[in-house]
Amino acid sequence: MYGAGDVRVEDRPDPKIEQPTDAVIRLAATCVCGSDLWAYRGTDKLDGPAPMGHEYAGVIEEVGSQVSTVRPGDFVIGSFFASDNTCEICQAGYQSRCIHAEPVGAIGTQAEYARIPLADGTLVATPAMPDQDLIPSLLAASDVLGTGWFAAVAAAAGPGKTVAVVGDGAVGLLGVLAARQLGSEQIIAMSRHEPRQQLARQFGATGIVTERGDDGVAVIKELTSGYGAHSVIEAVGTQESMMQAIRATRPGGHVGYVGVSHDVALPGEELFFSGVHLHGGPAPVRRFLPELIDLIWQRTIDPGKVFDLQLPLADAAEAYQAMDERRAIKSLLTV
Amino acid sequence: MYGAGDVRVEDRPDPKIEQPTDAVIRLAATCVCGSDLWAYRGTDKLDGPAPMGHEYAGVIEEVGSQVSTVRPGDFVIGSFFASDNTCEICQAGYQSRCIHAEPVGAIGTQAEYARIPLADGTLVATPAMPDQDLIPSLLAASDVLGTGWFAAVAAAAGPGKTVAVVGDGAVGLLGVLAARQLGSEQIIAMSRHEPRQQLARQFGATGIVTERGDDGVAVIKELTSGYGAHSVIEAVGTQESMMQAIRATRPGGHVGYVGVSHDVALPGEELFFSGVHLHGGPAPVRRFLPELIDLIWQRTIDPGKVFDLQLPLADAAEAYQAMDERRAIKSLLTV
Repeated sequence: MYGAGDVRVEDRPDPKIEQPTDAVIRLAATCVCGSDLWAYRGTDKLDGPAPMGHEYAGVIEEVGSQVSTVRPGDFVIGSFFASDNTCEICQAGYQSRCIHAEPVGAIGTQAEYARIPLADGTLVATPAMPDQDLIPSLLAASDVLGTGWFAAVAAAAGPGKTVAVVGDGAVGLLGVLAARQLGSEQIIAMSRHEPRQQLARQFGATGIVTERGDDGVAVIKELTSGYGAHSVIEAVGTQESMMQAIRATRPGGHVGYVGVSHDVALPGEELFFSGVHLHGGPAPVRRFLPELIDLIWQRTIDPGKVFDLQLPLADAAEAYQAMDERRAIKSLLTV
Repeated sequence: MYGAGDVRVEDRPDPKIEQPTDAVIRLAATCVCGSDLWAYRGTDKLDGPAPMGHEYAGVIEEVGSQVSTVRPGDFVIGSFFASDNTCEICQAGYQSRCIHAEPVGAIGTQAEYARIPLADGTLVATPAMPDQDLIPSLLAASDVLGTGWFAAVAAAAGPGKTVAVVGDGAVGLLGVLAARQLGSEQIIAMSRHEPRQQLARQFGATGIVTERGDDGVAVIKELTSGYGAHSVIEAVGTQESMMQAIRATRPGGHVGYVGVSHDVALPGEELFFSGVHLHGGPAPVRRFLPELIDLIWQRTIDPGKVFDLQLPLADAAEAYQAMDERRAIKSLLTV
């Protein structure tokens, strides 16, 4: 990406093993993330041209000398943060904040090949080479599914819980799927876009609320005997969406927030008296990958449905534009 | 209180049963809360003279016609929010945010008698009339102990957890006691006041950090292999103390915040990348009262030690001034 709205596909040198803990993978597919749009729209400023993309699934080409748990030929998925998976933070399940964490986005996986640091701690192999039709879902596990799942866990979704979801992008929609898998019976998707509403229902939403902001909060309260939802997933990252999530949650309930915060300042007094639990941040996708891969492998879940546009990598610019204009929920790029 | 720094003890009409769910109690003792100082210092503005106090323990004089679980002659303790203890919020343990919650502070318990609303849901009776020496501890259960306990629970204090405590007032000190009772082995009190440091050690602190702000955060990180504390109790309520608490917590750790927020705005992006759990607010003391009363009754804990000044009710003005000037940790008023 050269700047706001300026995406170019160019030849770059093939990545090489730089550290003995690296792996190089050949991507099976890659995709554009909602968070990539912050730069595309100019909200996040770039310092010159930057490689883009942090979601990936593919086949290992080569590994460094210290890599022992994955090998060339393995089909692997990893998270957008490389992690050692051994430090106290990783062992507690927060691999995205590993003391040795490296952002894969700085490398850029909207490409044919990518170098993945800390391969042993980062990559999880599938049981065998996947069928072609599983690749979108496996790719989704790399970020949007893992992030939606973390949001649902952070929001304490589960049996007996009413879950509301703020944000109808891929992460919000997969938050719906996660809440359903975790056993929640009442799941309310907040969306005013017909195709997204339909996908939300396919993923398990039992209700749709089209109102936003405090109007949306009022409807959630009406639907929950005036108490508010037990669990609210926030998957946008703006001041409005955060306040909508906090206000829609009952006292003692849980907000799981995974929209990357942009110009958000939470008012202390309102938060204090809200009595909610607030937890979120960059999702520790690595924690959930083995379970998510298994659910996809067993064809229990089909998160790849969020990809409603498929283009060759050469058409990356159009893949961005379609998401920016909300013509596509999420764009998959074939490699 | 007539205004900042202006505390007067006056005769007022005796409280009467107003609702059939009310009780009237004769106070055994009452006290001044750190949160009362916000008004005393002029930070919270008063609309004319206001009765003060929300902590109480005493003997029931009279109950309304619908009160069935406590009766005249019972020695009772309640929280600073009256609650029905039956709504979904109460049943989930968040009685301070009961849908019928009434702030006892609006009634004022720095008095000889007080009307307590929703007596069945609010008041917990002791097994018998307490020995005189237990009264300070039972009174502490009404707020500062219950609040410190909630903070420790919200911070997920427990076995294997390193706990740091921001704030060395009565609530912070009793947060130390709670963390110890909940099984934490390493408890770091952040305090620069010798008498408070001593009390913190008596309550179970294993270390004292005198640095504040980011310097204090750096010391906490040094003491925790660079990771930060698992659990941090925030018991002040300012921007500095909240950021100190969040920054001292490791990713995936828990901040339990109970200092009433004053002019706090939490930066969204920093909070997002901190990866902490944030939970707090007005403590649902009622949730913990049966257990806390039992621990006091068995003389397992002695939270009454936070009262280092005892004065007759007539000297309430001096009780406030001593706390304001930090000559006293907490003032008990005999009735």
